[in-house]
Parts: sequence; structure tokens; C-alpha cells
Amino acid sequence: MDPRVPGWSPSLACRLADAVRPILRGYYRQGLLIHGKSDQSPVTRADRECEAALRSILSREVPDHGIIGEEQGSEKSEADYVWIIDPLDGTRAFVSGKPQFGCLIALAHKGLPIVGVIDMPILEERWVGVLGVGTTLNGAPQRTRHAVELSEALMGCTSLEMFSEPDSKATFEKIRQQVRDCNFGGDCYNYGVLASGFLDIVVETSLKPWDYAALVPIILAAGGAITDWQGQPLSLESKGDVVASSDAALHRKVLPFLQ
Amino acid sequence: MDPRVPGWSPSLACRLADAVRPILRGYYRQGLLIHGKSDQSPVTRADRECEAALRSILSREVPDHGIIGEEQGSEKSEADYVWIIDPLDGTRAFVSGKPQFGCLIALAHKGLPIVGVIDMPILEERWVGVLGVGTTLNGAPQRTRHAVELSEALMGCTSLEMFSEPDSKATFEKIRQQVRDCNFGGDCYNYGVLASGFLDIVVETSLKPWDYAALVPIILAAGGAITDWQGQPLSLESKGDVVASSDAALHRKVLPFLQ
Repeated sequence: MDPRVPGWSPSLACRLADAVRPILRGYYRQGLLIHGKSDQSPVTRADRECEAALRSILSREVPDHGIIGEEQGSEKSEADYVWIIDPLDGTRAFVSGKPQFGCLIALAHKGLPIVGVIDMPILEERWVGVLGVGTTLNGAPQRTRHAVELSEALMGCTSLEMFSEPDSKATFEKIRQQVRDCNFGGDCYNYGVLASGFLDIVVETSLKPWDYAALVPIILAAGGAITDWQGQPLSLESKGDVVASSDAALHRKVLPFLQ
Repeated sequence: MDPRVPGWSPSLACRLADAVRPILRGYYRQGLLIHGKSDQSPVTRADRECEAALRSILSREVPDHGIIGEEQGSEKSEADYVWIIDPLDGTRAFVSGKPQFGCLIALAHKGLPIVGVIDMPILEERWVGVLGVGTTLNGAPQRTRHAVELSEALMGCTSLEMFSEPDSKATFEKIRQQVRDCNFGGDCYNYGVLASGFLDIVVETSLKPWDYAALVPIILAAGGAITDWQGQPLSLESKGDVVASSDAALHRKVLPFLQ
């Protein structure tokens, strides 16, 4: 185990995901879910209920750790250990009654994500990545696909809409022309299936730390590569351009298209 | 029951889906699945194995019915009753290890789809629509959402890529600007969740009869509307432009944008 990873931290990350799962399952497909309409919308309520549950566990068990979350902002974000949480990634799927949404939980040490969880409450799938240890899916070790040629690679991306600047869209299209195929949708799930060897590349932009922090240990510990578009490791300070590849050799072939 | 619906036909449609489910489950996430690479690719094998199983049941139980399928073409397609089958809709999801793919089975009478099944082998969800009777999800009656304003509607679409002609893309963008939100991905699943009241509009183009035939009874019998972009009922002769709405009033508001 990497000395920066507290021994009990993967288990705490899983208990956090355990707390969120029943809350999201309870709201799923229960009547009209309109996102962002008002602070009283069921999605906002689900999101806040989850985040409150997570913060309550963290403040009780690791009161000196920091927390960064989408809904309720940052606390002690200068601490050595910071939890980065997104209880509901894939809101569009959630409101449409589709199960491809997840809960993201990460622990960072001095800005570097070292433990990550992607938990899919409806699909009952949980990826756990621990830097220097490995990545599991429901407890079974996972490895990315290796030695895939760029022209044979399968790419995933949540939506073309995230490439709202003309430059970033052109960049995306350039790389899309190099790969075998690209499928859309997926949010955090794309990174889970990449860790398990079913996708080779994910290219996205405009992500926030709570969107990508959990993905970093999951991809790295499964044998993949994940950086910003300049090839720099992702930290909590990154700009939000993310590229993940199934191995370092493929990553080196992808990066030039993104620069 | 509509007199055109043979009483035993919904049950036969379900038995067909029962035959496909274990085959697709057996291939799911089993090693490298590259689509279209060669006739020997696992996806092609899975597809053919499913279609052969379906054709074998149909030729034994209803030898005078016609069959239209993607892989093995048409037989007796001039018969009064014709089965339209697509064992694997959502190939991109399937090859990427994502569970949002389904098996589509329809029975048409003189060109009009009267029974439809969307079966999701991994999600273990099955929508069955019987014209004049109703739509169920795993046996529970389903209804579309009603009286949704266009500006509040949630839209789904598998991929912007299907709008390959500039005209059709512009058409899609026009309607997208009218609705509350649009999410991508989904294939046949979008129509299932629309029948269950979680999506309001699906707009697609370039579909084949095996892509849309099963959707027609499912949407109609759940209280929704589904036509081509001109507002004409979908038949096996349709051009493949499809629009589905959660009710007739919403459909009337959507159609002018498509013409």
C-alpha cells in the first residue's frame, strides 16, 4: 500500500457509498424529477440528502479531513487529506429513469487523488481504486485492455455538448477520426468500463474536481493512464480537461491530438 | 383485445425474448467485442445465434408468418402476420460493456405493428406493448407522462451522429432549443422509459423497421404518440424518421418543427 493511503480509507470510502446508495434508489423513478428547476426539486433534495449523509459520516469519523462537494462547497480544503464527493453524477440519466448514474467518492492526499469509488446504485456495481494497490469491481480485480492500437480503440464521451468552445470541439473531432468508434452518454460509468477493459479512451472537458477525482485512482490502479489534455497528472487544481486511456502507450498516441 | 392481435401472440413474443436473453448475457463482457470487423466477430456471432434461435421458434410455431430480421433478411414478408426482430439493439453499448442494449421483437399485421417487446437482458427489464390492450414493464402497467409543456419536456436521442444530413441536423437542433433538456445515448431504452413516463420526446432518424417496429405498440398502448416526421403512422414501409411523444397534445406541438 502506498504510504499516503491510510489503511482504513478504502473501507471508509465504501461505507460512504453504502450510505448514498439507498437514498438514490429511493428517489429513482419516483414521479417527476426536474433538475435545476428550483431548490425544492426532488433531484436537488436527493443530492443534498446524500451530501448531508456523507458529511455527517466524515465529520464524525475523520473530523480533521477536508471536504469538497458540489452542493455544499468546501470545508478545510487545505487539510492534507480531503474527500471529494459527488453523490449524483449523471443527473440527466437519473431524471430520465435510466440507471447509468453513479456516486463518486475520492480521497486526495495533498491534492493527489489516492482512493476512488464509482458506485452505481441501480446497477449494483462498485469500482474501488486504491493507488499502488489495484482496482476492483464488486471485489474482483480489474485491468484495462492493453496494447490497443489507436485505430482499433473504442472511445466514450458523455456528450458532444461539453465541447462548447469551437476549439475543443475541433480537437475532439480530430481524435474521433482516429479511433474505431465512439459512443456517447455514460458519465462516470465510462471510466468504470475503461478500468474493466471494455473502453479504451475517454476524452472530456469542463469537468469539476468532484467529476474526475474518484476516477484517477480507479484508472491508474487498473493499469490505465489519466491526465489533463497536456499530459499533466490531475490534481484538484486542474482545469477540467480529462483524457483517460487504457495504457500509457495508447495515451502517448492520444495526447498529441489534444494539444 | 384488438381483433387483429392473436391472443397467444404477446406470450409468443415474450418466449422469443426469453430465448435471446441468455445468449446475449453469455456474450456480455466476455473478452474483446469488436463490431463489424469480420463475420467471425463475437458481436456478429451473438447476433446470428440469437436470430437463428428466434427463427427456429417462429418457423416451428407459426410457419405461415413472415419474418424480417437485420442479419438474415426477410422470409414471407408478404404474409398478413410478420415478425420483425432485432436481437441486439444498442451494439455500441454492448461492445463497451454497458448494459443499455436490448432485444426488439415486433409482430405486425398487414404492415401495422400490433405487439412489441423491448427486452433488456442485463437490466432484466421487459416492456411489452399490445395495441388496444396496454403496455407493461415486467408485468406492471405503464403510462406515459401527460400534459407536459414543450418547454418542460425531456428529450432523448441515441446520437447526434444519426443526423448526418445537414437538413436533419438543423431540424433536430430546432426542436432541441424548444425543450427543457436532451440526453444522448439510449437506443431502444429511450422508448421504454418514455412509455414509463420518464422521458417526453424521442426524435431520431435513419431507423430501420427492426429498430422501430417494436416501439410502436409499446408507445401507443402506454398513451403516447409515435409517427414519422410527417405525422404519419409508422409502418414497415416508413422512411425511418421517428418521433415519439408522451401524449398526442405534445406530439402536435413537436411535429411542426420536424416538417
